[in-house]
Amino acid sequence: MARSMQILLEPSEFPKQWYNLNADLPSPLQPPLGPDGNPVSPEMLTPIFPMSLIEQEVSKERWIDIPEGILDILATYRPSPLHRAFALEEYLGTPAKIYYKNESVSPPGSHKPNTAIAQAWYNKQAGVKKLTTETGAGQWGSALAFACAHVGLECKVYMVRISYDQKPFRKVMMQTWGAECVASPSMETKTGRDVLERYPDTPGSLGIAISEAVETAVADTTGSTKYSLGSVLNHVMMHQTIIGLETKKQLKKAGERMPDVIIGCAGGGSNFAGLAFPFVYDKIHGASIDIIPVEPASCPTMTKGPYSYDLGDFSGMTPLLPMHTLGHTFVPPPIHAGGLRYHGIAPLISQAIVEGLVNPRSIHQLECYSAAVTFARTEGIIVAPETSHAVAAAIQEANKAKEAGKETVIVFNLSGHGLMDLKGYEAYFGGELADYELPQSEIDATLQTLEGYPKPEVRRTGKW
Amino acid sequence: MARSMQILLEPSEFPKQWYNLNADLPSPLQPPLGPDGNPVSPEMLTPIFPMSLIEQEVSKERWIDIPEGILDILATYRPSPLHRAFALEEYLGTPAKIYYKNESVSPPGSHKPNTAIAQAWYNKQAGVKKLTTETGAGQWGSALAFACAHVGLECKVYMVRISYDQKPFRKVMMQTWGAECVASPSMETKTGRDVLERYPDTPGSLGIAISEAVETAVADTTGSTKYSLGSVLNHVMMHQTIIGLETKKQLKKAGERMPDVIIGCAGGGSNFAGLAFPFVYDKIHGASIDIIPVEPASCPTMTKGPYSYDLGDFSGMTPLLPMHTLGHTFVPPPIHAGGLRYHGIAPLISQAIVEGLVNPRSIHQLECYSAAVTFARTEGIIVAPETSHAVAAAIQEANKAKEAGKETVIVFNLSGHGLMDLKGYEAYFGGELADYELPQSEIDATLQTLEGYPKPEVRRTGKW
Repeated sequence: MARSMQILLEPSEFPKQWYNLNADLPSPLQPPLGPDGNPVSPEMLTPIFPMSLIEQEVSKERWIDIPEGILDILATYRPSPLHRAFALEEYLGTPAKIYYKNESVSPPGSHKPNTAIAQAWYNKQAGVKKLTTETGAGQWGSALAFACAHVGLECKVYMVRISYDQKPFRKVMMQTWGAECVASPSMETKTGRDVLERYPDTPGSLGIAISEAVETAVADTTGSTKYSLGSVLNHVMMHQTIIGLETKKQLKKAGERMPDVIIGCAGGGSNFAGLAFPFVYDKIHGASIDIIPVEPASCPTMTKGPYSYDLGDFSGMTPLLPMHTLGHTFVPPPIHAGGLRYHGIAPLISQAIVEGLVNPRSIHQLECYSAAVTFARTEGIIVAPETSHAVAAAIQEANKAKEAGKETVIVFNLSGHGLMDLKGYEAYFGGELADYELPQSEIDATLQTLEGYPKPEVRRTGKW
Repeated sequence: MARSMQILLEPSEFPKQWYNLNADLPSPLQPPLGPDGNPVSPEMLTPIFPMSLIEQEVSKERWIDIPEGILDILATYRPSPLHRAFALEEYLGTPAKIYYKNESVSPPGSHKPNTAIAQAWYNKQAGVKKLTTETGAGQWGSALAFACAHVGLECKVYMVRISYDQKPFRKVMMQTWGAECVASPSMETKTGRDVLERYPDTPGSLGIAISEAVETAVADTTGSTKYSLGSVLNHVMMHQTIIGLETKKQLKKAGERMPDVIIGCAGGGSNFAGLAFPFVYDKIHGASIDIIPVEPASCPTMTKGPYSYDLGDFSGMTPLLPMHTLGHTFVPPPIHAGGLRYHGIAPLISQAIVEGLVNPRSIHQLECYSAAVTFARTEGIIVAPETSHAVAAAIQEANKAKEAGKETVIVFNLSGHGLMDLKGYEAYFGGELADYELPQSEIDATLQTLEGYPKPEVRRTGKW
């Protein structure tokens, strides 16, 4: 039993509070701005979100209690296992100790339900009857459908047309959990009708789908329909910290010391934040940890995008957020890690980058698939294309440890399985995948759209 | 934390031995017979299986140690959680307590790796380099590919042509784990070439695929290629008992008493046997338990097939096995639970039926999908079409408990998730599924093929 064991937690060891990094950032997080350039007040968000979530969004409390009702549902698949990757270590011949937190065991197959359940529950408490959202590849829409089934809410998902057509089974998943899933743009909203009139054959976009979902929520003037977002926002990051908090207890249970390296892939940033933020706390308080969010080289938000105010969506339904961004009109190449094709990154992560608390890295698609295949053939789990970025970075770090002859402790987040996304693997084996070298000129072009927006104050304390 | 918790086990509580029902059957199990009507000797099986597995096949030892090397790999995803289905109970308004053992958490998504790992490991120990097998829907082929990646064996899977074409992603899964998957019939074997010559457009069958896999193993006269079977045989049933042995410990940990009802779906019978056999032991020793294998009404092997000697495959590559069977030429209607479309059932289960130790039941397809949707919307897991039969029976029993006002304890095996098989759900929602009323005349027709075969002695002790 010594070799490949999972490190589990008893239900009694389950974390009972979320960790809020906003309480500990060396410089205060700057607020979202309205179209007039003034900070958005909590009240302005009430047509979209219930007050309980708005309060979490602006809270500076370090620890926030997880309500019993949410714990009950999380406990249907949590605590998730932490694994030691003995077989991968052996294959690499590294002295590093590699651990991974396995979020793929949730019924929708990823970390997304951790916040979907919390959001659905708070909305239910607030008397909301129905949630709307958008989904691209389908991970988030599936997770929210699952969560709404648990708490008893209606759920409507606007799924980007091209994914709706290419991945019909994501729609069936949502339908099985009782949600309604329609292709976006749809004829059901003004946004959708306008787009379809001008571009009847459009493949759709996440920006359009967000606009449709928000429009549907706002249009219900009784307040019984609200909107739900699966990443980027502060409260979403916080709900995911259950991942890192469990990991800390599991490492302790395994007799392991504080890790040297923490890794997660990052699109909007929620799975990375979930694992990393509880360790960022330790870094702020003196621990020496390299904390690495990993993005695709073809969508280098963190590594090539400036820190600026920018829109969260394509068409301007959201406030301006302070974040690393490639500009909200940036359209990344069609890589298979659909969940990482976002022009910005969460404000909390952006601020942590500015402070030097986390050190982003970008990796090319082919290296990621190669790492994922190595991982499947050693550890046995077929990871999601998004997760393959974390695997690739973990292998890079393990190889560095080998060169240095150092027993580095590496922990990465296995954010989801790839069983619904095997098309990318098929393309990889068929030699049909390419690395996209993004020309600087292309990045420069969309960065110009940022010129009109205010710049957040950069207050790097320079300690890290 | 009280409501929906998983009941987990620490690695130290992991069962270290398999349970062998063959040691405790009231009447001795009757042997497989060769084409000449004489019992097959262990030596006759050596071209196909390593001696260690042949010994397990005929063993009468009650407990067989699980080697450390197998425990190490099983521990990458085991012990699997036992869940209490609080949300389902509440929805049904039943006084019954419903538990389910969640085998869907393995990386291939079902219970199949429990024996795949053991078989691959024993073959590796015996110096074998390569395993061949057949697969229908793809669950078994995926599991063996996964297991071979873990122990370092080549793996070749003959996949029934129609499934190969309809479910390309199963092939990609196997490829990701390093296995070769070809459509059957293929041009690589004499069997395949003969079939293709006569029927170039054949959709293939499990019988043909078995013949190809066995032919490939036998053709390697160096002995370094062997064949592996995913169900039916005694050693396969035994490897799966880890499921029931863990469940017993988990029920004890939860402070639960001996269950009243044990349920599993059954095609060849391995997931049912895995959960049920450790409880059959208790029944033999006096416990009052209703133990129910569930089959599709359209393939009523246990409920309408006689106990007879019959071939395990279509074309006669296997010995004659003593089992409940519809006749090896029976072709069940094309229901979505592909894993339950087998003409026979494991000899150990057949004997337990004859003894009255287990009480089979058949359920129609529409009731099963309806139960699966109820389960997804309450408990959150989208089960495999096969597993939906166990869910439907559990709901039947919970409703009986409600009528009787009795706190019945029900445990069923959630043998796998349905994420690779959402086509069935799509058809269900689309109103395209039917219940197949199998005419008795059709069953009678294939039963006639059994007339030439010897009849196993029926030695029902009549105690249960």
